[in-house]
Amino acid sequence: MTEAAKLARRVAETLLTREGTGPAWDIQIEAADEGYSRLSMRVRDDMLNGYGSTHGGMLFALADTAFAYACNSRNITTVAQSASIVFLDPGKPGERLVAEAQEKSLKGRTGVYGVTIFGEDGRVVAEFQGVSRAIGGTAVE
Amino acid sequence: MTEAAKLARRVAETLLTREGTGPAWDIQIEAADEGYSRLSMRVRDDMLNGYGSTHGGMLFALADTAFAYACNSRNITTVAQSASIVFLDPGKPGERLVAEAQEKSLKGRTGVYGVTIFGEDGRVVAEFQGVSRAIGGTAVE
Amino acid sequence: MTEAAKLARRVAETLLTREGTGPAWDIQIEAADEGYSRLSMRVRDDMLNGYGSTHGGMLFALADTAFAYACNSRNITTVAQSASIVFLDPGKPGERLVAEAQEKSLKGRTGVYGVTIFGEDGRVVAEFQGVSRAIGGTAVE
Amino acid sequence: MTEAAKLARRVAETLLTREGTGPAWDIQIEAADEGYSRLSMRVRDDMLNGYGSTHGGMLFALADTAFAYACNSRNITTVAQSASIVFLDPGKPGERLVAEAQEKSLKGRTGVYGVTIFGEDGRVVAEFQGVSRAIGGTAVE
Repeated sequence: MTEAAKLARRVAETLLTREGTGPAWDIQIEAADEGYSRLSMRVRDDMLNGYGSTHGGMLFALADTAFAYACNSRNITTVAQSASIVFLDPGKPGERLVAEAQEKSLKGRTGVYGVTIFGEDGRVVAEFQGVSRAIGGTAVE
Repeated sequence: MTEAAKLARRVAETLLTREGTGPAWDIQIEAADEGYSRLSMRVRDDMLNGYGSTHGGMLFALADTAFAYACNSRNITTVAQSASIVFLDPGKPGERLVAEAQEKSLKGRTGVYGVTIFGEDGRVVAEFQGVSRAIGGTAVE
Repeated sequence: MTEAAKLARRVAETLLTREGTGPAWDIQIEAADEGYSRLSMRVRDDMLNGYGSTHGGMLFALADTAFAYACNSRNITTVAQSASIVFLDPGKPGERLVAEAQEKSLKGRTGVYGVTIFGEDGRVVAEFQGVSRAIGGTAVE
Repeated sequence: MTEAAKLARRVAETLLTREGTGPAWDIQIEAADEGYSRLSMRVRDDMLNGYGSTHGGMLFALADTAFAYACNSRNITTVAQSASIVFLDPGKPGERLVAEAQEKSLKGRTGVYGVTIFGEDGRVVAEFQGVSRAIGGTAVE
């Protein structure tokens, strides 16, 4: 494991511990590296919309969390500025979704990250793109 | 209250009852009308990110819920296809956020909705734009 | 006409003169005010896509120009950071399209603008949302 | 060259010939394959904004063209439904920009494509994401 990967893992674990949402949604860190993260989350009943599939807000929330860990991976405090998501396939009740975030570009303080959400069978559930802004300071001690 | 507003209110209340998320997040319906909804949600500790402000996923989730009620307001089953959000100001712990969704355009099966999230003091916290697709059938009986 | 509207008009006219694109596309300024602009452009044959309707790039270009005039209207140099567009109805060959840009939110250096493109018959052709960033300095002397 | 690549090349060349915009902007096809295209365009003076760099509309237009060729590459008529772009670095006067479009996901009639615009020195100028919808029929004979 590289030093960069170790740092990324430590940032992700610290943010997960510190935030209210990750534990509430029972998010698991599957992998973390520089500009990269892969998370998983099981779709609970309290994450379903009125049509019985995963609420778009929860799909976004999972992707946004992966995005946050990836864009903070160098331990420079970085916040989301904007994001967009395309919903391709419903997330099913009970399945474990995986969100994989990858840095696409970094220019000065601005970064662009792509996040793909996969279903348990490997199908693509949603495509997310986020724009981050580094605001200085460190994410973890 | 017009018939259209009564129907929109009934759709919103039914979706809120039926979905797992709205009750879990304790979302309140402040108003509902044709192509319109206004919701509120108090920011709880389990909705905070690692920097102590409202998680972007929860801001999106609130806006997405308002969007869903607005685009289903005519009682035609309608799903979100894509959405984008711009984060302007942090949502504070404990404050009651308001999301106001308005239909901007409707063309065939496709609708475009704008949602603004306001803080308790009236400042704009986020701007959301969603694209919906009507898939037929009724949202509620 | 208010002083703010006069300044916005002067900024729009100066940018239009200075840029290569506006004159190349024969863009007309219909109105300009603080945080606002309304432009028109006739769809020429060299603006059509392979299916005979207005190229998405030209729809975006028109909206982006309206956005630029609106976000520079206070004479503070401001650049586009990101934007999204939803295509609702084809732009027809020969018709005069109108793009109306309105400021939705402004927070610090960041602004959010909505632009609607209308066809000659008033139908909505596209909905655009742009995020701007003020970088300081004046847009015009 | 595979049959799929030959077809993609033929679709791209036909669309380029048929559309008004590609020839007007002097777009060159560098490569084409299934779900993929790479185009280049030199930044002319009539493509500059009021601050002397490439107009955001022209960056979008180039990316949107690459997106169109990629999403029509299987010779099924496909249109853009929505798109978003993040501007990272100015496009310089006179430089040859390259846009590379890649299919990220395809589900039923809906596709998601990423397009990166590179400057002549390889830096990333913009990141684009487009959503397409297949409407049936063939793009070329």
